[in-house]
Amino acid sequence: MRGGAMARLAVAARAFSASASAGAGGGVSMVQGASRGIGLEFVRQLLRRSEQGRVIATCRAPDAAAELRTLREEHAPGRLTVLPLDVTDETTIQAAAASVRETHGSLDLLINSTGILSIPDVIQPETTLSKVEKLSLMLAYEVNAVGPILVIKHMWPLLKVGGCSETGRGFSLVANMSARVSSIGDNGLGGWHSYRASKTALNQLTKTVSVEFGRKDNIACILLHPGTVDTDLSRPFQRNVPKDKLFTREFSVQKLLSVIDNVKKSDNGKFFAWDGQEIPW
Amino acid sequence: MRGGAMARLAVAARAFSASASAGAGGGVSMVQGASRGIGLEFVRQLLRRSEQGRVIATCRAPDAAAELRTLREEHAPGRLTVLPLDVTDETTIQAAAASVRETHGSLDLLINSTGILSIPDVIQPETTLSKVEKLSLMLAYEVNAVGPILVIKHMWPLLKVGGCSETGRGFSLVANMSARVSSIGDNGLGGWHSYRASKTALNQLTKTVSVEFGRKDNIACILLHPGTVDTDLSRPFQRNVPKDKLFTREFSVQKLLSVIDNVKKSDNGKFFAWDGQEIPW
Repeated sequence: MRGGAMARLAVAARAFSASASAGAGGGVSMVQGASRGIGLEFVRQLLRRSEQGRVIATCRAPDAAAELRTLREEHAPGRLTVLPLDVTDETTIQAAAASVRETHGSLDLLINSTGILSIPDVIQPETTLSKVEKLSLMLAYEVNAVGPILVIKHMWPLLKVGGCSETGRGFSLVANMSARVSSIGDNGLGGWHSYRASKTALNQLTKTVSVEFGRKDNIACILLHPGTVDTDLSRPFQRNVPKDKLFTREFSVQKLLSVIDNVKKSDNGKFFAWDGQEIPW
Repeated sequence: MRGGAMARLAVAARAFSASASAGAGGGVSMVQGASRGIGLEFVRQLLRRSEQGRVIATCRAPDAAAELRTLREEHAPGRLTVLPLDVTDETTIQAAAASVRETHGSLDLLINSTGILSIPDVIQPETTLSKVEKLSLMLAYEVNAVGPILVIKHMWPLLKVGGCSETGRGFSLVANMSARVSSIGDNGLGGWHSYRASKTALNQLTKTVSVEFGRKDNIACILLHPGTVDTDLSRPFQRNVPKDKLFTREFSVQKLLSVIDNVKKSDNGKFFAWDGQEIPW
């Protein structure tokens, strides 16, 4: 009996020491789609909010990601790792997972932040059904829905062994960037067929994955709506956005991190706006 | 004034004569994906319920569609037209639309009934995230979400001039076959990632299109859940379905046609089960 009590005390002491050195933002976080926009801002704020936290930033072309390079130089060695990852090429996702397994061994937080809305001469948000093209529908789906799910698939073993107490959370978290326009119930305006459908599918895929995680693993998945944020993605479409509804990246990510900090395990599978309000499907 | 009153009377008389010769199932209906399963049964019942109604059945390979050929022979000439249409090949959709424009001039009802869930060695409903493959995700999306929307895009001009009083409806109707598993809110089981996501995207695309139609056209779009029906699609997955929950095609399509008959213009954009109950997003 006495040995058992001692063992329990030792466990409690270890837990206390871990929680004493903790702080939101500790642990290992991956931001996928981190070279610009909201993803880049997530990296910046995650690095700033904790001295212990390590961040893995992924993007298609690390060599061209000057701002990530600067951030890496500004912080202690090992705090920021930049890896190549293209969501449309599954082999790069597998390679990134293998690299993280080797260097970090686990993941506590995964933020999927890639997304396409428009690329000149390739894809444009549709204003009418007659402008809907198969190529746009397929491309938006590949990047906005399939990509994040494949990233989760390959990071899953790392998330399973994550959820360390340094994060103050007690479970691993996946946060997928969705958007309010993905809500079917909230769709009163129409248009943007490719983008809407891809993000709605991401919502369903995230919910589907959350059911399996809820059953087996110490992992939760959530969806986030960042508001309309002043980024390259939204720039061509900001004309009709009232000034006070157009957020800076700093503000939006601050709010989203506050949502992430307050997520409970029972929020698994939910869709939150930047202000913590739940968004209907 | 007297001329005006006479003209109004003449209009009323024409409307009366049209409605007198009418009956649910009149007008021109297209069933897309009609060689088997629920689509084939829609063709059968649409032909049976009215002597006037004309039906266009589309499928990938009309030459191989023996049951459609038999149905054509059983009915008066011109009542059933069979056209080739492969939802993954937009040129065949355009060709079908051109053919219908020439032979029928308009469409009153369009039922999109194609759908894939499993093809041996190609696509299987996933039981876990680790079995999710990019090819399955993309293929299910192409067939179940993109295909129906491209069909609506090309049939749109025909639907605009449809909605004739012979149908007893007063507006053109698009009915897309969805499935309850596409509901995000109702997803308590997980799994079937590719199928779920593609049908959820179809829901969003249908809603998006319905907003535009509601603004400009005399067309409504709805989504339908047929129940679990004894077809080739469901056969490999019927083991766990209670006997009384496994519908015959006859029963399911009878119920779905009753939903279609009772649709009001204000139901535009809604998602109905076989029993007329609305399904949450």
